[in-house]
Amino acid sequence: MTTTAHDITKRTSIGAQRNPASEEAILTAAAEILREGGLSAFSIEAVARRAKAGKPTIYRWWPSKAALLLDIYHRQKGETFYPDTGSTREDLIAFLETLLGFWKTSGGEVFRSIIAEAQSDPAALGALRDYAVTRCRASGIILERGVTRGEIREALDIPLVMELFSSFCWQRLLTGRLDPSRDQMAHVVDAVLTGFAAKDRAAQ
Amino acid sequence: MTTTAHDITKRTSIGAQRNPASEEAILTAAAEILREGGLSAFSIEAVARRAKAGKPTIYRWWPSKAALLLDIYHRQKGETFYPDTGSTREDLIAFLETLLGFWKTSGGEVFRSIIAEAQSDPAALGALRDYAVTRCRASGIILERGVTRGEIREALDIPLVMELFSSFCWQRLLTGRLDPSRDQMAHVVDAVLTGFAAKDRAAQ
Repeated sequence: MTTTAHDITKRTSIGAQRNPASEEAILTAAAEILREGGLSAFSIEAVARRAKAGKPTIYRWWPSKAALLLDIYHRQKGETFYPDTGSTREDLIAFLETLLGFWKTSGGEVFRSIIAEAQSDPAALGALRDYAVTRCRASGIILERGVTRGEIREALDIPLVMELFSSFCWQRLLTGRLDPSRDQMAHVVDAVLTGFAAKDRAAQ
Repeated sequence: MTTTAHDITKRTSIGAQRNPASEEAILTAAAEILREGGLSAFSIEAVARRAKAGKPTIYRWWPSKAALLLDIYHRQKGETFYPDTGSTREDLIAFLETLLGFWKTSGGEVFRSIIAEAQSDPAALGALRDYAVTRCRASGIILERGVTRGEIREALDIPLVMELFSSFCWQRLLTGRLDPSRDQMAHVVDAVLTGFAAKDRAAQ
């Protein structure tokens, strides 16, 4: 059920066998261009030049600029998003804090630009949709662990409910409100974990 | 607590007294341009020409193109989003269905273009942020009615938890997945209303 950075890379390579050395060179070049020149400097052409790779090779492995950007973005995120504290509540709060914190300090500009591009470019939309679906499955590990511990009820559509948390973060990013307090994040998590319904109703 | 289309219009007029007849002429012209020529035809210049209004007048009342677009978008939505069925569960499902349905049939293109523009235009971002905050307060009426009926527990930060539902819709719009089934929408609502926590834990 879980997906690692490696899986993401593999996922986008369907139908085109990648050469690991070239792939690494391309991803490294792309990350460098982004770090040095920002989004405005980022193009498949610039990446091809720096990586000494052909543009057709890049397009065969990443069908759109957005797909390549998403791979770099995802590598930058790292694997620190699903800490296992032993408590679903704490894991969910940490997930919100880590994602919003990452966006605030570094990855937010790239991710919001990808979302913006996806609204006018069908290839970017396809890459973003795949990414969103994959991430909601991956972050589901937080609730899966809770189910195993008997903390979270079974028969929950886990990717679907994880969408609620990731969507909350998206809207915060897209409206420039990346600064909810820890109390607000805890309130969101608590509201959802214990339900909105009045206690006597919930017990029915 | 609730906000009507009229309030939205008033909200953006802070600091500039509007002339109702001119305001109506501008909004009508803007809506016509959007309907006839789509987003690519829409500009403050085109609106000014058709409404026989000065561009400075428009900019005084709507500080950005996005702010004007949001007003037209909101008028098109109408006031059918918060039906009062007597059940919070049904009201929430209807809210999700109505919003996603509206985006699917007409308003989605405009709204996603505003979100995209907001990622590179600070004035558009400000207008979108105000709009999002106002709408989460307005849609809170669904949960407020539930509190009054004793269905929803008190001490809930209603606008904050309504963000979960609206954010879910935003992510669906922005990833081109406006077609969750009624069962999926009901699952999201039920999961949140009754909580994810296992029943014996919830009772603690």
